[in-house]
Amino acid sequence: MITSDATLPSSVTRRGLMLVLSSPSGAGKSSISRKLLDQDDNISLSISATSRKRRPGEVEGVDYHFVEPQEFQMMINENRFLEHAKVFDHYYGTPSAQVMEKIESGSDVLFDIDWQGTQQLKAKARDDLISVFILPPSYRELETRLKKRNQDSDMEVAKRMSKAADELSHYAEYDYIIINHDLDASVRHVHAILAAERQRRFRMNGLTEFVRQLQAGY
Amino acid sequence: MITSDATLPSSVTRRGLMLVLSSPSGAGKSSISRKLLDQDDNISLSISATSRKRRPGEVEGVDYHFVEPQEFQMMINENRFLEHAKVFDHYYGTPSAQVMEKIESGSDVLFDIDWQGTQQLKAKARDDLISVFILPPSYRELETRLKKRNQDSDMEVAKRMSKAADELSHYAEYDYIIINHDLDASVRHVHAILAAERQRRFRMNGLTEFVRQLQAGY
Repeated sequence: MITSDATLPSSVTRRGLMLVLSSPSGAGKSSISRKLLDQDDNISLSISATSRKRRPGEVEGVDYHFVEPQEFQMMINENRFLEHAKVFDHYYGTPSAQVMEKIESGSDVLFDIDWQGTQQLKAKARDDLISVFILPPSYRELETRLKKRNQDSDMEVAKRMSKAADELSHYAEYDYIIINHDLDASVRHVHAILAAERQRRFRMNGLTEFVRQLQAGY
Repeated sequence: MITSDATLPSSVTRRGLMLVLSSPSGAGKSSISRKLLDQDDNISLSISATSRKRRPGEVEGVDYHFVEPQEFQMMINENRFLEHAKVFDHYYGTPSAQVMEKIESGSDVLFDIDWQGTQQLKAKARDDLISVFILPPSYRELETRLKKRNQDSDMEVAKRMSKAADELSHYAEYDYIIINHDLDASVRHVHAILAAERQRRFRMNGLTEFVRQLQAGY
């Protein structure tokens, strides 16, 4: 487990950050996210709200926050989402309140969203946001992973590849790039990015006072 | 040893970066630098040029590049320094050529300079520069370290403390802050900052072509 703030004096606190991981399906994002959440207890996954019905086996507050369509619409009108989208007939989105509360108390939040969600989030979160794009090491590897995933038809795989190509075209909107050759190496890269961004001056509260005390001889 | 680019495909290369560590004397910067240079073989220390005479035991190209005063002045006139300063009667500075060559070939360069040098370097290096300020964990600790260093008079220590207070006042010009409680933890922080900054999209060359090939199915 990583407890990131062990080296901060009590008078200095840290503002949390929002970490976005995006990638085409098949690049290994889910495995990286899972390991990260397992290994670092100062970051938690953002749970989306949705207006679609709960399916058997899904748990409220774990898989999604299930919200009535009218309530979802009201939340949109009241600007209570960091990002949202309509996919076919259903709404999906990230409620601001739960995220901002964590950020302000110094906890980090992980987002598993695509480039469209990232664009919206960036506009609202500004400096709180760090974005990482995960690339597959090669076309062959991407294809293999998309095929391995399930026994679908060639047409289904081709459709998925085309969607991946689309997602790939947005890599240049991200701060950091990880080429995922090796799961453990990629997880180490994400840990390093988190560890570094936690040391950013502008994320630390109380530094001015801390330095003033060093100068004054307390 | 850390070989940072093991996960990049051969068509993607990385631009090196300039890492500045600054701190008041007594905050532990030299120990951190030494460990970093020992443990990471993709970063090397920038060697300054100076117009002062070589002292016994000093080695050309290791301690300094020793340059005649007239030559130093000519190099200033020709804008061949990333930063320079005159301290009493002698010039000190960082020649651009040796640093830029490393950066362009993907090697990182460590700078042990103060806030004045950092300001000059930032103006020239722009995005190539990452700056880290190291703070002592407390006034008491800073004082202890300054006293331990040698058996000087109280007045000498007081003078050093006052210089430290001056240096401290510039912490807010730096990208990252490390509060140096524990040497090994601080070294880990610097490693993380380096590892993260090496994953920055804008430092990678060849990504556009790499992604195009992923999309095209190579």
